[in-house]
Amino acid sequence: MTNKDARTPASVQDAQSEEAGKSIGWHKAYVEGSRPDLRVPVRQVHLTNGQAVTLYDTSGPYTDPSVDTDVRRGLPPLRENWIISRGDTEEYTGRPVRPEDDGIKHTSPRGGLRNLDAVFPGRPRQPRRSRGGEAVTQLAYARRGEITPEMEYVAIRENVEPEVVRDEIAAGRAVLPANVNHPEIEPMIIGKRFLVKVNANIGNSAVTSSIEEEVEKMTWATRWGADTVMDLSTGRNIHTTREWVLRNSPVPIGTVPLYQALEKVDGRAEDLTWEVYKDTVIEQAEQGVDYMTVHAGVRLAYVPLTANRKTGIVSRGGSIMAAWCLAHHRESFLYENFEELCEILAAYDVTYSLGDGLRPGSIADANDEAQFAELRTLGELNRIAKRFNVQTMIEGPGHVPMHKIKENIDLQQEICDEAPFYTLGPLTTDVAPAYDHITSGIGAAMIAWWGTAMLCYVTPKEHLGLPNRDDVKTGVITYKIAAHAADIAKGHPGAQEWDDALSDARFEFRWEDQFNLALDPDTAREFHDETLPAEPAKTAHFCSMCGPKFCSMKISQDIRREHGGTRTEIEEGMAQKSKEFAASGNRVYLPIAD
Amino acid sequence: MTNKDARTPASVQDAQSEEAGKSIGWHKAYVEGSRPDLRVPVRQVHLTNGQAVTLYDTSGPYTDPSVDTDVRRGLPPLRENWIISRGDTEEYTGRPVRPEDDGIKHTSPRGGLRNLDAVFPGRPRQPRRSRGGEAVTQLAYARRGEITPEMEYVAIRENVEPEVVRDEIAAGRAVLPANVNHPEIEPMIIGKRFLVKVNANIGNSAVTSSIEEEVEKMTWATRWGADTVMDLSTGRNIHTTREWVLRNSPVPIGTVPLYQALEKVDGRAEDLTWEVYKDTVIEQAEQGVDYMTVHAGVRLAYVPLTANRKTGIVSRGGSIMAAWCLAHHRESFLYENFEELCEILAAYDVTYSLGDGLRPGSIADANDEAQFAELRTLGELNRIAKRFNVQTMIEGPGHVPMHKIKENIDLQQEICDEAPFYTLGPLTTDVAPAYDHITSGIGAAMIAWWGTAMLCYVTPKEHLGLPNRDDVKTGVITYKIAAHAADIAKGHPGAQEWDDALSDARFEFRWEDQFNLALDPDTAREFHDETLPAEPAKTAHFCSMCGPKFCSMKISQDIRREHGGTRTEIEEGMAQKSKEFAASGNRVYLPIAD
Repeated sequence: MTNKDARTPASVQDAQSEEAGKSIGWHKAYVEGSRPDLRVPVRQVHLTNGQAVTLYDTSGPYTDPSVDTDVRRGLPPLRENWIISRGDTEEYTGRPVRPEDDGIKHTSPRGGLRNLDAVFPGRPRQPRRSRGGEAVTQLAYARRGEITPEMEYVAIRENVEPEVVRDEIAAGRAVLPANVNHPEIEPMIIGKRFLVKVNANIGNSAVTSSIEEEVEKMTWATRWGADTVMDLSTGRNIHTTREWVLRNSPVPIGTVPLYQALEKVDGRAEDLTWEVYKDTVIEQAEQGVDYMTVHAGVRLAYVPLTANRKTGIVSRGGSIMAAWCLAHHRESFLYENFEELCEILAAYDVTYSLGDGLRPGSIADANDEAQFAELRTLGELNRIAKRFNVQTMIEGPGHVPMHKIKENIDLQQEICDEAPFYTLGPLTTDVAPAYDHITSGIGAAMIAWWGTAMLCYVTPKEHLGLPNRDDVKTGVITYKIAAHAADIAKGHPGAQEWDDALSDARFEFRWEDQFNLALDPDTAREFHDETLPAEPAKTAHFCSMCGPKFCSMKISQDIRREHGGTRTEIEEGMAQKSKEFAASGNRVYLPIAD
Repeated sequence: MTNKDARTPASVQDAQSEEAGKSIGWHKAYVEGSRPDLRVPVRQVHLTNGQAVTLYDTSGPYTDPSVDTDVRRGLPPLRENWIISRGDTEEYTGRPVRPEDDGIKHTSPRGGLRNLDAVFPGRPRQPRRSRGGEAVTQLAYARRGEITPEMEYVAIRENVEPEVVRDEIAAGRAVLPANVNHPEIEPMIIGKRFLVKVNANIGNSAVTSSIEEEVEKMTWATRWGADTVMDLSTGRNIHTTREWVLRNSPVPIGTVPLYQALEKVDGRAEDLTWEVYKDTVIEQAEQGVDYMTVHAGVRLAYVPLTANRKTGIVSRGGSIMAAWCLAHHRESFLYENFEELCEILAAYDVTYSLGDGLRPGSIADANDEAQFAELRTLGELNRIAKRFNVQTMIEGPGHVPMHKIKENIDLQQEICDEAPFYTLGPLTTDVAPAYDHITSGIGAAMIAWWGTAMLCYVTPKEHLGLPNRDDVKTGVITYKIAAHAADIAKGHPGAQEWDDALSDARFEFRWEDQFNLALDPDTAREFHDETLPAEPAKTAHFCSMCGPKFCSMKISQDIRREHGGTRTEIEEGMAQKSKEFAASGNRVYLPIAD
C-alpha cells in the first residue's frame, strides 16, 4: 500500500536518531481513552524548537510503523468487542453471494463466489444484525442516554466532552456512521458542531480502472485527509471491489445501492423493483457499508419540474429514479417503501444519506422549484427515519452561485431539523472544466462556514473523466483547505492553533517546521527546493522571493528588537543560523556590483 | 512570443476551411467605436450549433493573426493620437538613463545605456508630460465632463454607457490607469461597478530569471486573462526589463518604485532619500508605468503596533519604510512629500495604488490595529490625491479568515470614499503552502463579490519561491475563476451568459463547444481525452464518468421528450450522432455479460 512506504516510518526513525534542531518530521501517536482498547490516533508534528503540534489523523494503521498491514488480510477489527459486548446483535447466515452481485451473468463459466474468494482470501466472518429487531444505532443509544465507546472516541478526536457528542447525535444534528459489520473503522462524527469533514469518491466504472487501483485510491485519499470514502463503482466486480475497500478502510464507507441494483437488471431502469433494491441494500449492509445514498425524494410529481431546466437532472441516482417513475407512471418505489427500508438500516446501523437527485447541474438551475420540492420531501423522510432511530444526513448541491449559497443551507437546516448537510461543492461557476476542484472549493468553504457538516470533494476531472491518483490527492487537499478555512471561520476550538504554529515557523524561518506542518509537506518542500535546493537554504533567514536585502520578515525582527519584542532567543538563534549560512558559502544573493 | 504560436491562428484557419458541425474554435474580433481608430478586441467563440459567444479579451495583438508582432520593436502605439490630439501634453528631453538605473555601478565597464540599447533597439520616443503642469488624468477629464476615447473604449468593453464610465471615474469609484507614455495599452477600467479585474505579478529577483522570461510571463499572463501586470523586478537590469515589458504590454503595467530606489542605495533602507525616490518615480513615469504602489501609509507611529504581531510586517515596501522610519526616528518621507508626489503623478496620469504596508501576514494578525491605523491614513491620502486629480486605488490584505473579510472591505469602502479596493487574496488559512492560489482564491471570490474591484493573483509558489510559467497560468486561471464567480454573484450584466452557454453545450453533449468555451480549453480537452481519446467520443452522448447506461443527461433528454421539452431538433441531432458513434465501432462501454 502506498501509505506503508510513506514518509512516516522514516521520520519516526529520525525522531530517534537525530539531534534537536534538525527536522524530526512527525509520527503517529495515540491518545488513550477510558479503556485500553480505546486509542485515538493523532499526528504529532515535532518542531525544531522542541515543541510539538497535534493534528487530527485519518490515515489509519497504514502510517503506524508498529502495525503490519496486509491488504489481503484487511485491518484489525478495532470495534468488534464494543459491538459484541453491547449484546444486542447476533451473527447469522448471511445472504449467499451470487455471481450477479459481481455483474457476472448466471451463464458465466466463472462463478462469482469462487472469483471473489480468489481475489480476497481473508473473507468475512458471519454478518451480524440486530438481535430482536430493535434499532442498534448510535442514535438509539444516544437517545437512551448511553455514551458508547464510539462516542467517547470521537469526543477525544474532536476535543469535546462525550456528553456533547451524545447530545448532538440524540438531537439528530450529528451522525456517527458505524455499521456493526464494519468493525475496522476509526469512529468519526459528522455534524456542524464538529470539525468539517471531507468525503472522497472512488469507484471503477464501465469504462476503466481495477480493484487494486480503487483500494489504493482509498488509502491514498485517507492518507491526505479524507474522513469518509464513497465507493461509486459501476460495471463489473462491484461486490468484490467493495469487499476489499471495506476490509481495508479505516474510515466509514458510503455507497449508492441503486447503482449495483441497476447492474443486476442489466442497466434497464424500468426493470428495477423494490425486491432487487432491497436485496442489494441487505447485501451491502452485511458487507459493512456505513452510509447509503438513497434517492427517495425524487417523486413522480417532481420530474416534470425539471423539463425546462438548462441541464435537467444531473444526479445519476436521480435520473434513474426519474426514468423509472416515468416508465411506469408510478410513485417512486423508494418513497413508497421507505419505512421498510428504515427497519433494514436500523438493524445494522447503516446511516441514511438522503440523496438530492434533483440537485442543480448548472448556475442557471440553482435553488429552483425542482430542487426545493425534493428538499421538502427529504425533510419529511428525515422525520420518518428518526422515528425508526436511523441516523440521517441530507445531501446538497451541486452548482450554486455565491449569492444563493446561504439561502440553500438555511432552508435545508430549517426543513430538515438541522440534520447534517452533506454537499457536493457547490460549484460557483460553470466555465472552468479541469478546475472544478477550485470553482467548487470556493463554494464548499462558504457553505461549510455557514453550517455544512461534510463536503464531498470534486476533482480536476469533474465533468471530463475519472480521477486518477493525482486527481484524488488534489481534490482531497483542496477540500481539506475549504474545511479548515471553515473551521477557523466557525471559531472551532483549536482550529487556528495549526495556522498559528505554521505562521510562527514562517516568521522564525524554521523551514523544516513549515514543511512538516503543511497540509502537503512533500509539495511544499519540493517547491521551495526548486529555487533554493541547497541544505543551508533550509536555515537561511530569507527565501528566493525577495533575496536577503528585501526580506521583510528580517526587518520585522529588527523592529521587534527595537520595540521590546519577546523573541530575542529566537533572534540570536537566527543570527547563528545566518552565520552558518554565510560560512557555508552558499551565496544565494548576486551582488549588484559587477 | 508564446502567444504568436498559440491555438488562435489555426482556429481561425479552421473557421474558414471547415464545415459547420465540427469544431471551429474561436477567433479574435473587434467592436468598432465612434471613430475608426477605436476598435475594441473581443474573443469570439464559434459554437457547433452555429451560434457565437463573445468574451472579454486581454490577450492583445498577439492573438490576432493579421498583426505581425515583434518584441524587439514593441506593440503599435494605439493611443498616441488620442493623447496628442488632447493638446495638453508636450514632449521633452527626459531624464538621462544612467547605468545605476539598471543596478550597474558607476565603475562598471559596461555602460547601462549602451547595455540598454543593445537589448532593446526599438527604444522610446521622447517622453511626454503635462504642458502647463495641470493634471492630464482621466479623473480630471471625467470631472470636466469629458468622455475620452479611453472611456468610450472601456464602455464598449464593459457593455455599459460611456456616461456610466465617466461618472464612476469622476466619483473616484473607478480608475482607468493610462500613463501618457504608455500609448500601447488597450484601455481597461477598475471599479466595483465593472467586471472584477485580475493582476498578475512578474519580475526577476536577486536570485533568478531573465528579461526574456519576464516579457514572456507578461504575454503569457495576459493570454490567460490578466487585466494588469505588475513588474516587481529587483536585482539587476530593472530599468531594461521594465522597458521591454512596457513596450510589449497590451495591459496597464504597475510597479513599486521603492524597490528600484532601494537598489540605487545598494539595498540600505536607511540610505533612502526623498530625492532618490522622486528620481525613480520620474524615471518610471517617463517610461510609461501606469500605476505605482506607494507605501505612504506606513507612518513612524504605526511601526510599534506591529511589534507583537505573529508575523510582523510582511510587505516588502512596508518593511523598508518601517526600517527607514526607525533608523532615522523620523516620519516617513513618502508621507511628508505626498503632495509633491501627487503633482508628479498628475503630470503623466500615473494612478496611485496606495500600498498596505502593514497588511496581515497570518490569520492571527488579520484586521488588527496596525492594519486599520494604516487604512485610516490611506483614506486621508486618497482625499489629498483626489485634490490633485490623481486617480487612486487602495491595496488590501493579505491573510484574513472568512468571517473577517466583510468587515475588512466594508471599512475600506467607508474610510476611502469607495475608492477601488485592490486586494491580495486574501488567504483564508495559513496551513497550505504550495496551494495558496486556492487558500486565497476562496477569499478573493468572496471579497470581490462584496466589492473589491481588482484581485492580485497568488501562485502555488507563494511563500516558497518564484513562479514559473506554469505557476503564472495556474494563478491567473484560479483568479479568473474567483473574479467570474464574483461577477455572477454581483449580477453583472451578461456574466452568467458565459456559464449558460457552456452548460447548454454540456447538456447537449457538444464536447468541442465545452472545450472552446472553457477558461482553459487546452487542459479541459486534454483531461477528457485521457479516458476517451478517440474522435468519435467527441460526439458521444455520454462520457467516461458514467458510461452510456448511467448517463443522467441522456435520461433527462428522455424526460424532456415526455414532458414537451423544446429541444427536439437537438435530440434528433443527438440520435444521429449516437448512430455515427455506434457505427464508428468505438465501443467505450464494456458489456456486463462475459
